[in-house]
Amino acid sequence: MDLVSSAKSFGGTQAVYRHASRETGTDMVFGIYLPPQAASGDPLPLLWYLSGLTCTHANVVEKGGFQRVCAELGLILVAPDTSPRGETVADDEAYDLGQGAGFYVDATRQPFSLNFRMFSYISQELPELIAANFPADMGRQAITGHSMGGHGALVSALRHPGRFRSVSAFAPIVAPGRVPWGQKALTAYIGPDPVAWRLWDATALIEDGATIPELLVDQGSGDAFLELELRPELLTEACNSAGIDLTLRMQPGYDHSYYFVSTFMEDHLRWHAQRLFG
Amino acid sequence: MDLVSSAKSFGGTQAVYRHASRETGTDMVFGIYLPPQAASGDPLPLLWYLSGLTCTHANVVEKGGFQRVCAELGLILVAPDTSPRGETVADDEAYDLGQGAGFYVDATRQPFSLNFRMFSYISQELPELIAANFPADMGRQAITGHSMGGHGALVSALRHPGRFRSVSAFAPIVAPGRVPWGQKALTAYIGPDPVAWRLWDATALIEDGATIPELLVDQGSGDAFLELELRPELLTEACNSAGIDLTLRMQPGYDHSYYFVSTFMEDHLRWHAQRLFG
Repeated sequence: MDLVSSAKSFGGTQAVYRHASRETGTDMVFGIYLPPQAASGDPLPLLWYLSGLTCTHANVVEKGGFQRVCAELGLILVAPDTSPRGETVADDEAYDLGQGAGFYVDATRQPFSLNFRMFSYISQELPELIAANFPADMGRQAITGHSMGGHGALVSALRHPGRFRSVSAFAPIVAPGRVPWGQKALTAYIGPDPVAWRLWDATALIEDGATIPELLVDQGSGDAFLELELRPELLTEACNSAGIDLTLRMQPGYDHSYYFVSTFMEDHLRWHAQRLFG
Repeated sequence: MDLVSSAKSFGGTQAVYRHASRETGTDMVFGIYLPPQAASGDPLPLLWYLSGLTCTHANVVEKGGFQRVCAELGLILVAPDTSPRGETVADDEAYDLGQGAGFYVDATRQPFSLNFRMFSYISQELPELIAANFPADMGRQAITGHSMGGHGALVSALRHPGRFRSVSAFAPIVAPGRVPWGQKALTAYIGPDPVAWRLWDATALIEDGATIPELLVDQGSGDAFLELELRPELLTEACNSAGIDLTLRMQPGYDHSYYFVSTFMEDHLRWHAQRLFG
């Protein structure tokens, strides 16, 4: 694991690391914020933040504004990349497929199956690396994400019952099997059979019996992707049927950008902290 | 004036505009944050933020983290670009001269004299534009900046006595006439005579009798540019001799990046607000 960069931020350390990944077969980069409380060496709770289409670890690290509140709360935040990358890695000219658009799945279709193993990467490999190298209390994990990363956070929580004490999302893709972004990606990564997509679709997973106790979602009403790609009403229906305590907050006038994410970041961090420290 | 982008942020609006500048002879872009209180139409105080080498308006707009506190305080923040730009505009291969490195001077030497009139732009043209188009109370202005922009903020305040109710800077270039970045730029923009540089050098201006009542400066002790380019001790000496109430805070371990700026942004905003609203 190589340190790419490190800067003091709100009394803690915002670091970026690169490591060779067994899952993706590539070097992977991630950001990690260690609050000032990490200096004591005592294990601290950990929040995963999964990013959206076209993003790397850097978007939330630079624009998310989480460091101030994580420093206050004593919360580690880990921001993985959104896909494997490199000249030898499969890609597509479109922004919503291939590099920068891994959708947090383990691809089964060529050419993506060789490297696009983001689900195993974020579920197994990276947690092991974090646990081995940082003062993280892996018994107190939470997860959130934005857009495609909101999808990743929901699927990860639903497929790992009990792993996360709390789950939230910013403008998540809640039903990839029923929206253009998701249908395109799942066809390329998993294949043309929609039944196989259900393992990678939060609303389908809930319909099929997976569950979490509660969920916080913020969604901008001015989000250009709201009606076609995000469709939070599908999540509401699924949660209502399954008895999942969903708090869906429609935020008037907010778009899909990091101006939206950063505005509500503090609320999410405090929501997670209540459950991680409670 | 054309709207380039607009996004809701912390209840207010983070906008970016482009306009044809009479001073630079080019289109210029700036960012402006209008807090929620601007919706009432009542005039609000205004903080100028001048950016550093290589930056545009976007760096602080995306990474500065000021919107949350400006929204609370009811403070407009304007972030100009750092130079004229374009294919027909003089430039240099180095990052510290030409486009992205205007040093907030009115250049007198060819080829830069044609477009590099950033002092007049930020002192006259842009304030007129802001006053004409936004609910800004031009009787309640404050100014700050980072690195080259800290230099710009100090020089601007010293050369416009009484215009700004408060002045601060993040890791400013305090004595461009005595450090490599400044000597290179001033030679190219103003000419080889160091006497002419004194109008563009905060410590020289103070030595020559310009003054402000007080000044807040934060400086990271881990800043790679500290000893060669920034030299805050020269500002301390000048302020001590002139009776300027300088609060210089050496911040242990912080570097020159926006991780440093964003950490101390809230302190600066509240410091300015005390003087703007007092």
